[in-house]
Amino acid sequence: MAIAAESHTDVLIIGAGPSGLAAAYWMARYGVKARIVDKRGTKVFQGHADGLRAGTMDLFESMGFQHRILHEGVQLGEFSFWTRDENDRLKRQQRVRSDALDGLPYRTIALGQGRIERFILDTIAGNSDLQIERGVVTESLDYNEDMEENHDDYPITVKLRTLTEQEADTTSAHKSLLRDQLASDDLADLTPSRKNKPGTVEILKAKYLISCDGAHSWTRRQLDIPFTGSTTEHIWGVIDVVPITDFPDVRRASTVESKHGSLLIIPRERQLTRFYVPLTEVEEASGRFDRSSVTLDMIRQKVQEILRPFQFDFKICDWWTTYQVGQRIAQSFTKGRIYLAGDAVHTHSPKVGLGMNVSIQDGFNVGWKVALVAKQLAYTTILDTYESERRRLAEMLVDLDRRWSQLFLKQQNAISTGSQEKIDAMNEILRSTALFAECLLSYYGASPLVDKSEEGIAQNISSGERLIAAKIRNQASGEPSWTTQILRSDGRFRILLLAGDIRSEEQKRRVLAFSRYLSSDDSVLRRFTPGTTPLDSLIDVITIHSAPVEETESSDLPDNLRSLDSLRGWQYDKVWSDADCLMDLQCDGKAYEKWGIDRSKGAILALRPDQHIGWIGQLENVEGLSGYFDGILRQPVQKSFL
Amino acid sequence: MAIAAESHTDVLIIGAGPSGLAAAYWMARYGVKARIVDKRGTKVFQGHADGLRAGTMDLFESMGFQHRILHEGVQLGEFSFWTRDENDRLKRQQRVRSDALDGLPYRTIALGQGRIERFILDTIAGNSDLQIERGVVTESLDYNEDMEENHDDYPITVKLRTLTEQEADTTSAHKSLLRDQLASDDLADLTPSRKNKPGTVEILKAKYLISCDGAHSWTRRQLDIPFTGSTTEHIWGVIDVVPITDFPDVRRASTVESKHGSLLIIPRERQLTRFYVPLTEVEEASGRFDRSSVTLDMIRQKVQEILRPFQFDFKICDWWTTYQVGQRIAQSFTKGRIYLAGDAVHTHSPKVGLGMNVSIQDGFNVGWKVALVAKQLAYTTILDTYESERRRLAEMLVDLDRRWSQLFLKQQNAISTGSQEKIDAMNEILRSTALFAECLLSYYGASPLVDKSEEGIAQNISSGERLIAAKIRNQASGEPSWTTQILRSDGRFRILLLAGDIRSEEQKRRVLAFSRYLSSDDSVLRRFTPGTTPLDSLIDVITIHSAPVEETESSDLPDNLRSLDSLRGWQYDKVWSDADCLMDLQCDGKAYEKWGIDRSKGAILALRPDQHIGWIGQLENVEGLSGYFDGILRQPVQKSFL
Repeated sequence: MAIAAESHTDVLIIGAGPSGLAAAYWMARYGVKARIVDKRGTKVFQGHADGLRAGTMDLFESMGFQHRILHEGVQLGEFSFWTRDENDRLKRQQRVRSDALDGLPYRTIALGQGRIERFILDTIAGNSDLQIERGVVTESLDYNEDMEENHDDYPITVKLRTLTEQEADTTSAHKSLLRDQLASDDLADLTPSRKNKPGTVEILKAKYLISCDGAHSWTRRQLDIPFTGSTTEHIWGVIDVVPITDFPDVRRASTVESKHGSLLIIPRERQLTRFYVPLTEVEEASGRFDRSSVTLDMIRQKVQEILRPFQFDFKICDWWTTYQVGQRIAQSFTKGRIYLAGDAVHTHSPKVGLGMNVSIQDGFNVGWKVALVAKQLAYTTILDTYESERRRLAEMLVDLDRRWSQLFLKQQNAISTGSQEKIDAMNEILRSTALFAECLLSYYGASPLVDKSEEGIAQNISSGERLIAAKIRNQASGEPSWTTQILRSDGRFRILLLAGDIRSEEQKRRVLAFSRYLSSDDSVLRRFTPGTTPLDSLIDVITIHSAPVEETESSDLPDNLRSLDSLRGWQYDKVWSDADCLMDLQCDGKAYEKWGIDRSKGAILALRPDQHIGWIGQLENVEGLSGYFDGILRQPVQKSFL
Repeated sequence: MAIAAESHTDVLIIGAGPSGLAAAYWMARYGVKARIVDKRGTKVFQGHADGLRAGTMDLFESMGFQHRILHEGVQLGEFSFWTRDENDRLKRQQRVRSDALDGLPYRTIALGQGRIERFILDTIAGNSDLQIERGVVTESLDYNEDMEENHDDYPITVKLRTLTEQEADTTSAHKSLLRDQLASDDLADLTPSRKNKPGTVEILKAKYLISCDGAHSWTRRQLDIPFTGSTTEHIWGVIDVVPITDFPDVRRASTVESKHGSLLIIPRERQLTRFYVPLTEVEEASGRFDRSSVTLDMIRQKVQEILRPFQFDFKICDWWTTYQVGQRIAQSFTKGRIYLAGDAVHTHSPKVGLGMNVSIQDGFNVGWKVALVAKQLAYTTILDTYESERRRLAEMLVDLDRRWSQLFLKQQNAISTGSQEKIDAMNEILRSTALFAECLLSYYGASPLVDKSEEGIAQNISSGERLIAAKIRNQASGEPSWTTQILRSDGRFRILLLAGDIRSEEQKRRVLAFSRYLSSDDSVLRRFTPGTTPLDSLIDVITIHSAPVEETESSDLPDNLRSLDSLRGWQYDKVWSDADCLMDLQCDGKAYEKWGIDRSKGAILALRPDQHIGWIGQLENVEGLSGYFDGILRQPVQKSFL
């Protein structure tokens, strides 16, 4: 057995699923010394998760690949409910469209997890040399608490072993895949290169560990963290097939009631449709069911039964699996410098179409915090906010799944199959949880990263939440843009100067005073930005005023709000106007109203690198703003930033 | 000198610029045996053309990469005019927004030619094994007219020579490029692989030749085709720079008047701005000007002079060149089986931002026709329509450029510099030519491919034009989609069944009768589709009815309009509704009105593979429809299509 020399890294990520990749994105962005390993021989190509919510699309836009999702994915705008009437006739009871997303850039999209991974992988590759090491298993984990306090120590020791091709089972993956089922840009990943030779054992020391190793998390078990909750006795099948059917709503998100439970239908890319199929129940007493006894034909027959009198069949099955519904949450999400994220800390049924979203946001949440601390730019205290912020979301997810899945079961409650009452109940869940389920509300509590002391300045947005997307106009070009396009996940904090109506002399003076603060030695820009890097490399200032583009010039604003760069001139992406744009109906000049901000007086927002609002204040409250950053950022110990 | 054996190909394309690549796209799509050579050692990375018009974006959407353009390009929504007043003060005289594109999917976009080539190249690679052979020059051309009549003959003989790296001058290209100026997906193209060893000479026999070898076309000269027109005596500089300036409209399309002529400003991707700069005039008599005497600093100073009192400078120059305005058109676009396209047949100033568009459309136009004939699917007579369709556009382009460029010259006419009169004249040109300049009108005359006999059925669309884009809803999913997204450039003709209001029994009967025709042995589908291929592989039928989605089911329409496929089931992308969609303001249920089609009775359109309307008729006019295709398609001589 070949043994590699002991090696060191700042951050180790275990698991390269959506959650691990979202964390790895930040390592690439911040240039953190990191490793990322995954036991699977290849990336995921087919099946698995497929639901993307509006808030996740916002996040992807901030990462720069939303257009690829829109190009390949399927938008789910409406929901259809099918029931059987008293004569056992199947009929479409209702079609429902949510208005929760009206006026926002994105809707729910369905696209296979493999493609999402593709886009994050490409983004990582475009920003760094970070390579995902596949076919690598973790064999031991040692954590030395005594080393926790000293940043330069490596309290984590992991033994890594590179699998043989046989162990990694890449051959069977190749065989089971038809090449024409693969996107051409995924082809190269069928045979990923290995960093180490098969069988190599490596002792890796890390300062931080982010573990995203799935529902059966090896890391969680190593740390003896209890994973509490229930596994119910209901077995479900999932199939991604190209359906041959005369059921008319196979291209719409739909539920179909039956006495066996409800079928859930989700249309997908490449003519695929996903079916969540109730299969069987197991006696409470008998415990676990042998899922390996389920065949694809059993699932097919069940769908045929539920959809009857419509015909149903398929010849192309892209992927299928079975699962046992279980809602569980890890008792702890962290231990010292080890962070668990994604399925490793919350499992649930896939039917709510939210799991991948929450997992991505977990990894995204912990990623930038660990990166900032690893770079010694932020205090380690911000790391505690990972669990405090994400646990509540995990609980809400599991709770929503419990309520939603319940309704798919065979007469689990008083509500009878096929009744309008049941549809009303489903509708009510969809309606009442829409903003949470679309990942547009985060419920992050007060912390060093979320200052909730300001009240009354913004009526419709608050600290701990992301800024509601609005379409505004660039001052220099006049062209419209969603705020989600402007607020990029490039690693920087942002000060959003909502400058108000700068046509008024008084407001101009207020803006000038704030800009002078920014240029002063006291300002958060000067105090926290390492000396040799541009002043906007750690905290970026974006101005959105409320006067019409036509009645203003960039030069009406103080120069430093447009940061003149000696190489690249004025930065035209810094100043925006909340003005309407005749050629774009969505750009209606009502962003301030959407946010509940006074159009004359404006406000200041501090945004975290993940676009969550950290602080809200008046233009004069520079002390409050300073205080917010004082709680997060360290005085620079290095001369340059990235 | 290594001599390769004589080889054969069905189609040879000379020149892999936008025009040649657009033609090559069809070879890839139809699976035609083809070669494409280019004398340059590498693809274009920087500079050259950069204006994309709305109609070109439609075309790119039909090819499937519009989202990449939108992601990287800069939208040009407004035009600013700057003049000097009587006191020589520079001021913004007017900002103008065209409403010609309101209600359509795209606006004018600016993006460098290198990126456009990237996207077409990727699309070709995704559809075929066709490789662009770079660093290959053509050394002789022989055309044997006697072989013209027999399809199987190879009347064209071209001697190809693979350049040495030194000749191809790839090294200097490498040196002049900063790696960080390159998109990461362009990097591999810095060192393209060569098919043959440097110095190899190859004798290539081809059935057809499409030559897109630029303004100094070698092919045109070999064929002794006169290139008539004028080269005026005005010298212009073009620079792509990251400007350092306080001129406020450097991120807007703008003109700035000066006594030396007008400066034209076009904002671009990656913080670049392009400046078209009037440099000097040459005495009429002295003839050609030595452009090599122009330096980048001369251009910089000229811009400084024109923009004064604003500051102007730059440190980053991505690309620059000089040009002498000249409007020329080739006397002939074809000779036998040889077709010239793009700059090889029309040159003009780049200032109108239309040249690349017309060139792409040239290549696109000739490409599918040659491909269909090479595959023996269509009569050779359709090849004559290339020149008849494209010459008129080339003439209009050159005429527009002549009028537009004139206004940029120093007091060329009675209109004095800086006057509102001049701006009005510019505005009037922009306004009156908008639909042509945005490539939304084609003016194709009657031919076997364009039947103009039907009148009065469609008020706002006509044969020879592309269908005006409208947003409609998919019957099966209810989701909105632009028609430009549905009508793909996949090589197929289309029958667009505008089925009218299918809630009416009478209309249902008319639709049923038409669908029966489609299934009959007489139908164009049965007569022209090779026996073993699916019935929609040569002519695709798309239905758009005018009844609300909510009041109709797919099954209200005859089965064959949804083509049940034994492997892939019903085809859900075949049936659409012109109904409004609450969640999408652009999907207003008024497509029929946009086209001027009776909502009750509907109509039938036959679309060519390039989405141009070839024929319009009533639902009963199956004879007319048959007749249209009889003039184009041959009875199948092969068993399968592609």
